[in-house]
Amino acid sequence: MTEARADGRTYDQLRPVTIEKGWSEQAEGSALISFGKTKVLCTASFTPGVPRWLKGQGKGWVTAEYAMLPRATNDRNSRESVKGKIGGRTHEISRLVGRSLRAAVDMSALGENTIVIDCDVLQADGGTRTAAITGAYVALAQSIEWAKANKHVPTKATVLTRSIAAISVGIVDGVPLLDLAYVEDVRAGTDMNVVATGDGKLIEVQGTAEGQPFDREELDRLLDIALAGTATLTELQNEALKA
Amino acid sequence: MTEARADGRTYDQLRPVTIEKGWSEQAEGSALISFGKTKVLCTASFTPGVPRWLKGQGKGWVTAEYAMLPRATNDRNSRESVKGKIGGRTHEISRLVGRSLRAAVDMSALGENTIVIDCDVLQADGGTRTAAITGAYVALAQSIEWAKANKHVPTKATVLTRSIAAISVGIVDGVPLLDLAYVEDVRAGTDMNVVATGDGKLIEVQGTAEGQPFDREELDRLLDIALAGTATLTELQNEALKA
Amino acid sequence: MTEARADGRTYDQLRPVTIEKGWSEQAEGSALISFGKTKVLCTASFTPGVPRWLKGQGKGWVTAEYAMLPRATNDRNSRESVKGKIGGRTHEISRLVGRSLRAAVDMSALGENTIVIDCDVLQADGGTRTAAITGAYVALAQSIEWAKANKHVPTKATVLTRSIAAISVGIVDGVPLLDLAYVEDVRAGTDMNVVATGDGKLIEVQGTAEGQPFDREELDRLLDIALAGTATLTELQNEALKA
Amino acid sequence: MTEARADGRTYDQLRPVTIEKGWSEQAEGSALISFGKTKVLCTASFTPGVPRWLKGQGKGWVTAEYAMLPRATNDRNSRESVKGKIGGRTHEISRLVGRSLRAAVDMSALGENTIVIDCDVLQADGGTRTAAITGAYVALAQSIEWAKANKHVPTKATVLTRSIAAISVGIVDGVPLLDLAYVEDVRAGTDMNVVATGDGKLIEVQGTAEGQPFDREELDRLLDIALAGTATLTELQNEALKA
Amino acid sequence: MTEARADGRTYDQLRPVTIEKGWSEQAEGSALISFGKTKVLCTASFTPGVPRWLKGQGKGWVTAEYAMLPRATNDRNSRESVKGKIGGRTHEISRLVGRSLRAAVDMSALGENTIVIDCDVLQADGGTRTAAITGAYVALAQSIEWAKANKHVPTKATVLTRSIAAISVGIVDGVPLLDLAYVEDVRAGTDMNVVATGDGKLIEVQGTAEGQPFDREELDRLLDIALAGTATLTELQNEALKA
Amino acid sequence: MTEARADGRTYDQLRPVTIEKGWSEQAEGSALISFGKTKVLCTASFTPGVPRWLKGQGKGWVTAEYAMLPRATNDRNSRESVKGKIGGRTHEISRLVGRSLRAAVDMSALGENTIVIDCDVLQADGGTRTAAITGAYVALAQSIEWAKANKHVPTKATVLTRSIAAISVGIVDGVPLLDLAYVEDVRAGTDMNVVATGDGKLIEVQGTAEGQPFDREELDRLLDIALAGTATLTELQNEALKA
Repeated sequence: MTEARADGRTYDQLRPVTIEKGWSEQAEGSALISFGKTKVLCTASFTPGVPRWLKGQGKGWVTAEYAMLPRATNDRNSRESVKGKIGGRTHEISRLVGRSLRAAVDMSALGENTIVIDCDVLQADGGTRTAAITGAYVALAQSIEWAKANKHVPTKATVLTRSIAAISVGIVDGVPLLDLAYVEDVRAGTDMNVVATGDGKLIEVQGTAEGQPFDREELDRLLDIALAGTATLTELQNEALKA
Repeated sequence: MTEARADGRTYDQLRPVTIEKGWSEQAEGSALISFGKTKVLCTASFTPGVPRWLKGQGKGWVTAEYAMLPRATNDRNSRESVKGKIGGRTHEISRLVGRSLRAAVDMSALGENTIVIDCDVLQADGGTRTAAITGAYVALAQSIEWAKANKHVPTKATVLTRSIAAISVGIVDGVPLLDLAYVEDVRAGTDMNVVATGDGKLIEVQGTAEGQPFDREELDRLLDIALAGTATLTELQNEALKA
Repeated sequence: MTEARADGRTYDQLRPVTIEKGWSEQAEGSALISFGKTKVLCTASFTPGVPRWLKGQGKGWVTAEYAMLPRATNDRNSRESVKGKIGGRTHEISRLVGRSLRAAVDMSALGENTIVIDCDVLQADGGTRTAAITGAYVALAQSIEWAKANKHVPTKATVLTRSIAAISVGIVDGVPLLDLAYVEDVRAGTDMNVVATGDGKLIEVQGTAEGQPFDREELDRLLDIALAGTATLTELQNEALKA
Repeated sequence: MTEARADGRTYDQLRPVTIEKGWSEQAEGSALISFGKTKVLCTASFTPGVPRWLKGQGKGWVTAEYAMLPRATNDRNSRESVKGKIGGRTHEISRLVGRSLRAAVDMSALGENTIVIDCDVLQADGGTRTAAITGAYVALAQSIEWAKANKHVPTKATVLTRSIAAISVGIVDGVPLLDLAYVEDVRAGTDMNVVATGDGKLIEVQGTAEGQPFDREELDRLLDIALAGTATLTELQNEALKA
Repeated sequence: MTEARADGRTYDQLRPVTIEKGWSEQAEGSALISFGKTKVLCTASFTPGVPRWLKGQGKGWVTAEYAMLPRATNDRNSRESVKGKIGGRTHEISRLVGRSLRAAVDMSALGENTIVIDCDVLQADGGTRTAAITGAYVALAQSIEWAKANKHVPTKATVLTRSIAAISVGIVDGVPLLDLAYVEDVRAGTDMNVVATGDGKLIEVQGTAEGQPFDREELDRLLDIALAGTATLTELQNEALKA
Repeated sequence: MTEARADGRTYDQLRPVTIEKGWSEQAEGSALISFGKTKVLCTASFTPGVPRWLKGQGKGWVTAEYAMLPRATNDRNSRESVKGKIGGRTHEISRLVGRSLRAAVDMSALGENTIVIDCDVLQADGGTRTAAITGAYVALAQSIEWAKANKHVPTKATVLTRSIAAISVGIVDGVPLLDLAYVEDVRAGTDMNVVATGDGKLIEVQGTAEGQPFDREELDRLLDIALAGTATLTELQNEALKA
């Protein structure tokens, strides 16, 4: 576990992370986030009102859509709009992002308002879904500030009940690694995405054996480094939000 | 934790499970599985040959499709064929079932053959994805026996490298429960699906905080009862396969 | 005409028919029907209210959707939900089932309520559309009993004005045969589906020359055995409904 | 039965029928047919080769597509291309037209060639499917002449084994009527489409009770007038083809 | 520039143009227009009311859909309804037709009414979009007369503020030509569609270099002949409308 | 014409333009271009081989897809992938971009290789299609350099025969303006997009009267300022390509 990784990182080290709040000038909240070469543009669109099935309950709604530009990857993929349907992976990640963000929001405090988070991957090098969640939180937080400043939500309402951040971990050649780049991801025997709160509790744990099954000890080691990673991301989110 | 549940089960007790191998007479493998009122018809379709992107590598392919009849649930849902698109939940579960089954198969031993598993939920009362995986394993195993009997795969090939079974667990009112029925599922604060091997290792762990975040101790308690549950399911699968 | 058929039946004999009312516990009406190996699960979903184009006229609506599981047949077919569109055959049979059932219902007596019948073929061996109609009638009748018991429809209303049942007939090697199994169907020169009332009148006659044109005498002979078949099915429906 | 109909016809009289062979100058065969105000443009597109599933069998293929211009009817309907899917009625009629035409063709004599018939309803006033079949036969016959003239098919091959024509009949106020106009069609208790050969045999009989069930005597009376109608249409087709 | 074209026309001569107002008896306005072999059926459907986004503003709406029958062309194209999506070319021309027609209408004078123009190409030999616009104007004008006669629009309202007509021009072998037939169109180096008012002003100019870029002098020469062409078309429209 | 515009520009002044070549590290060519707040990410994907319909002719193919992120605009738009179909505007612009780029390429010199250009609008403030074309040219040029460096195309081949750039112009309150921002665009009476070569010839001219028709003098004045604008853009492209 002492050997450096392809890009020189230690096993429990994040790639360089940047979070640029407000990158999109027209959205109520936005962030351009990078985990190494992975770049995701997250926007939050705040609109008064909720979908019909939720009307009259005094609660808000938060949902998310994740997508990838066709040439975000090494080889170009067909556009889902051209194919006329959304792939399973896109659906699955959109649902994960939305569910994770909803865990950070008090819907009653939000009131009958809707926030749609769009996470568009501009460049992909592994960890796009965890970068998306981490950046989406910043866009979400900015949009809630906007909503308070614009009187859509009472200034004193505690709409955000906690912060969330996400990171991928995996076992490569028997070694648990934090924040897998694409070249590591394809070699990982076990692959796990962890969404955690700012104070280290779990929102979502998705571990998958790509080759050999894993045991509970391995699960524990992966969780250890993942939670250290999300703690660092939480600090970076806070800095970005203060900027 | 000593109180009985709505249907009288203890917290770590499965619902009545039945597995009827060969229910569909025309498929190479099939099983009608029930977890209480949840009923899933699983079929395995074996065909020589593999998709184009896999040709010439001497390896097979296993994939799965999960779906629900429109009136499997308490209220009728529109058919996805009528809507013209597959929902995110369907996509996500299909991917989970396929990934789980592939973890049980040695693709080189399967050779250039394809097995498509269809899991159609005839009646839904919680736990449909875990019943689907557990029943699909039986259909898969039967189809491999068929393939050996019909000389598509060498009789001595070890195509199945392990057995797999799946179960849901969740925390309801602070109590970890095994095999949630629908009424329990909607009340669960944390919800987790666990796919495990017959010898108790992990293939897939998907835990989600529906309300409050969960901590690692809760995760551990959920895994304890889940793995006891999959051990029981493994025995029932073996009995069904011998029948 | 004295020789037995492949399965030993006489030319005017039905396959073994079973009708299990209430197979789906959650639908307002349901029936699992089998004509030999052909198995169709029929459910009736009753909901107060009618589609917008019918509102305010005091009349109800009955419609049907027919579909086949991908591995109901000897070879697997792609799912229509995956293809993103419904095939012509599915459309055509759905329309036939719906039209036939509507002929059994007094829409004014039903009042502004909607019944959606789903007929999902679990296993197909010829005659799926006629089994679907025959089973759907049982599900429909059960759902109307439910609606009366639950005060959605007046107890004394005569919602069902007649019973309906359906059977296929065809000419194979010059011999008219009742209730064609798949192997007979592919060899039939003329193929006809007949939907009839319990008292032997016609609701729908669809005869098609697959090879040679047919004449009116042949049409008459086919109708003779078809109406004898639907008379037997009517008795079996009544028994199932009493169970 | 002696009273005249809204447009002055007797009960067994066709509307004025015109058939203009070769209306489309670019198709291998074509006909603009009118049954009263109903106008259908039929084209036959002949191409060497057959679909993949038919290759190497020495047989040809004939298929048909029926569609309606959005403003063919009294009120405008949305385009199926805009809706992104084909309706059940369109599917059903396309299948009927294709099946009927195939009954007129010896596929071995056609050889490995494909003929696609398009029937586009320019104006609709009842009977569009029967006008489509009747006109399509003329377009088909012209395209086979073209194929012989252009050496795609041997001059002496008997590709067309019989002629076909189609007409609608129905029972309105207890009276069987031939060739229903739209205003009659909506009032018909029983509605039937009959496709027949030039020598009076049956290719397709599709009778539907719209209100009351019908009995076999009524079926017979409808067939009587239908076959007289198709005999007249056969003469008109022959004249058009000679023109 | 003195040589005759393939069909004997001079460089600035239109093909024979016919406009038959009221070809469709059921639409509020219609015209069958031909530019040589190109034949387009244009219908105008007038309905009271406007789309939701326009309600309450006292203004009307005009929109258009352009489409081609599958065998309008030399080779058959797949139907867009069968493909389940509309191609880019279709979309682009529909937008052009709608935009051009809207330029002829005073939406306030139209009031809260909608006119949908359908342009269906029955036969295509170049210039289908310009024939569509030119014919659509006639259908539009007829539908406005209908609306006045039927009291949907005040008789004195000036709904049509100007007439419009359209023509294609192009440079073939260095020579600017008017109203390109298909064989000329495929050889054109520059291709331009011009929509103009009856008094010679421009509504839409779309010039495209298919091979070599063009200069402003060439643009001017093309506009010269195009405007002479639209002036002639304007006269023919007026004659058709008077008929 | 001496008054400043909302953002202080003169009538014939471009917004600040930046072109960042190689913004996407994984594509063969790329450029992030901004015209004021409008930001478009253009990538060029080079792949050996051509579509089937072009094989064996020794020629290459260039095509383009334009799209907008859902929150590129002031209000969020639904994703076209979610709607399952591409809108007319997207189709139209994709076709314009592709056609314009093809006018810059010698397909024989490119050889049997394909370049797909993706133009994704990250932020929209008017002029997205002209920014897309101008940036796409830079991505295209970079990808051709890449192809030469990687021996897919001979180093000496003149694949790019000319440079292209595009700009919008329009008449606002009677004044012709260059490079309209969104607030100007919505007020423009005439709107025109001009694609020109580096030496001032025309590739595409698309002028549309949004309100009043325009005359040829106005067309000339718009072309004057447009061509001055594209000349400036050509210089900026050259600088970016040298960087």
